Parts: sequence; C-alpha cells; structure tokens
Amino acid sequence: MTTEGRPDIDPAIRAYVDQRLAEIGPRVPENRVTMVVFSGDLDRQLSSLVIATGAAALGLEVSIFYTFWGLSALRREVHLKGKSFKQKMLAIMTPARLGKMPVSRLNFGGIGRAMLKSAMKDQRVASVEEFFAMAREMGVTFIACTMSMEIMGISEDELIEGVSLGGVATFLGDAARSRVSLFI
Amino acid sequence: MTTEGRPDIDPAIRAYVDQRLAEIGPRVPENRVTMVVFSGDLDRQLSSLVIATGAAALGLEVSIFYTFWGLSALRREVHLKGKSFKQKMLAIMTPARLGKMPVSRLNFGGIGRAMLKSAMKDQRVASVEEFFAMAREMGVTFIACTMSMEIMGISEDELIEGVSLGGVATFLGDAARSRVSLFI
Amino acid sequence: MTTEGRPDIDPAIRAYVDQRLAEIGPRVPENRVTMVVFSGDLDRQLSSLVIATGAAALGLEVSIFYTFWGLSALRREVHLKGKSFKQKMLAIMTPARLGKMPVSRLNFGGIGRAMLKSAMKDQRVASVEEFFAMAREMGVTFIACTMSMEIMGISEDELIEGVSLGGVATFLGDAARSRVSLFI
Repeated sequence: MTTEGRPDIDPAIRAYVDQRLAEIGPRVPENRVTMVVFSGDLDRQLSSLVIATGAAALGLEVSIFYTFWGLSALRREVHLKGKSFKQKMLAIMTPARLGKMPVSRLNFGGIGRAMLKSAMKDQRVASVEEFFAMAREMGVTFIACTMSMEIMGISEDELIEGVSLGGVATFLGDAARSRVSLFI
Repeated sequence: MTTEGRPDIDPAIRAYVDQRLAEIGPRVPENRVTMVVFSGDLDRQLSSLVIATGAAALGLEVSIFYTFWGLSALRREVHLKGKSFKQKMLAIMTPARLGKMPVSRLNFGGIGRAMLKSAMKDQRVASVEEFFAMAREMGVTFIACTMSMEIMGISEDELIEGVSLGGVATFLGDAARSRVSLFI
Repeated sequence: MTTEGRPDIDPAIRAYVDQRLAEIGPRVPENRVTMVVFSGDLDRQLSSLVIATGAAALGLEVSIFYTFWGLSALRREVHLKGKSFKQKMLAIMTPARLGKMPVSRLNFGGIGRAMLKSAMKDQRVASVEEFFAMAREMGVTFIACTMSMEIMGISEDELIEGVSLGGVATFLGDAARSRVSLFI
C-alpha cells in the first residue's frame, strides 16, 4: 500500500468509506424551497412571489403549491357554466388572476388593493403580475392542488398554461427535501 | 493489514472514520413533519389535516401543536362555569370541535361553512371530522398548547381524549428534527 | 504504517476521508430558527415571540424577518409628514409597537386586544412587550424588510434601535441553514 496520494488508497478502505457515507444518506436537504400558498390575499401572494424570485435568483429550486383561495393566482378565467350553486359562490371568491385579489387588511371593497398597487408603482417595485411572470421565467414550478380544484369546481381549462396538477403527496415530496418550507 | 474486504479494515482506520462521521452528527432531519395550528378557520384546519394524513400515509411521523384559536379542533365541549368574563368571551370564539368553525373567507355567519362542507360532500371529499379521525388512527400526535389553555381558561377536561399537553419547548423539540415545519 | 491509534493514520487516508466528508457538505441545518412575521395581529406576533424566546432559551439562534403589517412590531413612532397619501394610509394600518395591534379575531375596535391582554395578565403570562424585550435580551435578531419599508414609506428613524435592515436574500440566507422556518 502506497501513501503518495488518494488514487492509491487501498480499495478496501475506499469501499469502507463509501459504505459508511452511504449509511448516513444523501445530502439532506437539497437546495430547494417549497411553499403552500393557501391565502388569496394580494399581499400574502406578493410575499410568496418575492420569496420565490429571490430564492430562484440565489440558485434554489422553487415549487409553489396553490391550494384553496390561493388558486386565484393560477386562474386564467372563471367559468360559471356547469358549476353547482356552491361552486359558483366559491368561484366568485377566487377571482381570476393576481391583480383582482383583495388585501388582507384595509381592503374596503378594493380601495386597499388599489392603494397598495399604486404605492408599489410609486416606489418602482414590480407589480404582483410582474413578480409572477419573473418567477415563471426563472423556472419556479407552479402546482395547482387537485383536491381544492375538485371542491371548488375549478377545471383545468380555467388555469393558466404551464401549471402542474398535484395532490398533497406532490407537495410533501418537494417539501421533505427542501431547506425551507412555508405555509402562506 | 489485509485488503481482501471490509471486515479486515485496520481497526484504527475504522475508529478514525467512526469519529469523523460522529462529528458531522446524526442524520438530520428525521422523517417528521411538525405543524403549529394557530388558526381556528375551518379551511386552514382542513389543510393541516390533509397534510397530516398525507404525511402519515407516506410514512412520516406527524405532530400538530394546537395554539390559540386552533385549539377549537381539540375541544370536546365548552364550559363557561368558573371562567372569568374574558375567558368566557375567548371560549365562545373557540367553538367546540371542527364542524362549528368559521371559514377564513366567505363566512357570512356560517353560510360559507355550510357551503364549503356541502361542496366537499358533493365531491366525495372526506369531511374535516373524518380527516381528524383518520389522522388520529394513523398515529398523528395532537398537542394542546398549555400557555394558550391558561390564557383562554380552557381546562384539560374540555379537551377530547388522547391529546398531549405541551409548551413551546415541546413544539421546538419536534420541529427542530423535522423535514417540514409549518405555521398554519 | 502503524495501527496503534488515530494519530498514526496514514495521511493519505486522512486526506481521502476529509475530501469525502467535504463532498457531503457542512452539517445542515444549523441550530437556527428563522421566521417571517407578515401579520400585524397581536396574537400572531405573540406566537412568534413565544417561539423566539423558547428557541433562544434552548440555545438556538433566532432571526425574525418583519415584513408588511408585521413591521408594526419594530415601529418606534409613526411619522406622517413627508409621506404620500397612500403611505399615510398604510402607516395608519401599521401602528407603532406591539401594544396597539389588533387581534386576528374578536377585535371589535380594540375590545379583543384589551381582553386578550387582560386575560394574559390575569394568568401572569408576560405581555407581548415583555416577550419582545426578553427576545431582544436573549440575542434574537430583528430584521426589517427594506422592500416593505419602501412601499409603505417607513423610514429607518421610525424604527426602534438595534434593528437590522435586509431584503429577501437576508431572510433566505438565514432560512436556508435553519432547522425551522415559519411564515407567520
């Protein structure tokens, strides 16, 4: 057995170290951020997108799992035809797209939303739609929760393109190997 | 020193590798999911139970730590006797059990709750009570926050059976070794 | 090559083990808890501070990143001069300091806040201001989200002393190496 360098390490020792390292498992967690966006409030959705684009810019993989009222972010349009009365009511509460969502405080029938959007513009902060487009361009994965879609009667053709569908197992599969998981 | 196989690795080398592996610590995190459920909204509680049952089905250990309004999920009944006026008011805001909780949006004095529950039934989605029972059967640990219980004047006999009591150290003990921790 | 003990392990083997361990990366995560506090509700802020002080008492490093309505916790005073009308409205929604924040339920124009605070006092639970002071003394790091400050027109001199300023990269830098990350 030579001692000149790594290439000459005894193969038995290599094998032993390999085995011991395999036992402690893969590097956990991965460079990954996973979020559940439950809220349909404009300000909370904005927070999730600021985190998503920030994380993507830092080289982290990002998935956002949209559930319940959060699904608003992924709706292209709202169909009422073919929905039960209850589903129509739920549909109306999840308006199509980000720009129409209420804010969690200070909403006053839309005044709060207008004010927040306008204050963001004054400060040259990107709008929530721009953040969403950026997130998409940066490769953030958007997943629509199929159970919520069923309950609320949202069909796949009401969603924007490029959205994945998934259930709780999809979310947990991503979250379990993430450095950061958030419920927003 | 022989090179035939692992059983013959020099004991000194074994000891060295053992020591170096011990330095990097145990495999962190464990296959575990921990949630704080702060909200008493039916829809948020439902989300926590969907995640809990999904995670348990995937073989993860799950603890849910119920605090503040979230304690509703664990209340068997609400006693008003022996409570201060303030505690009575707080008690009324945390109704007994899941089926009586409001939803975070669209509540309109209970219409939203009825509508959501009915839409879930139409889609053959389990009710929040069924999800809770499933979670319990699957071994999910339910912990009631003792500080919240004190503030709100909730006594142990108002809680359902099989609930653990714990403080923030209990939560952190579980969360610190979890793959996923969520505040709902 | 001797086999008497670790100090005599072949340097080539040491180097090989070092390299293999370096490949699996540093011990991840660190003993660290990171929170985003988005909500300006007294009860949610209280939860974040109970977790922060509990974690600090257990020897974990804690950072709290305050964003949007959560910034209330860090405001020393509210200036209206020099702010746009929209920023004035947003400023009024983020009152200075913890004691003036509404609760997420049962607020009724401040009655809920008074009742919760009084019930906490009756039970000899520290007030939210006391929890904040404790957290600070225990070395919890408080970070104000600069993007939220810009949107809401909050200047640095409206914040209490000893607060760091940071963006989403600051939050992610802490969260990515934390055992527990929560969005509150």
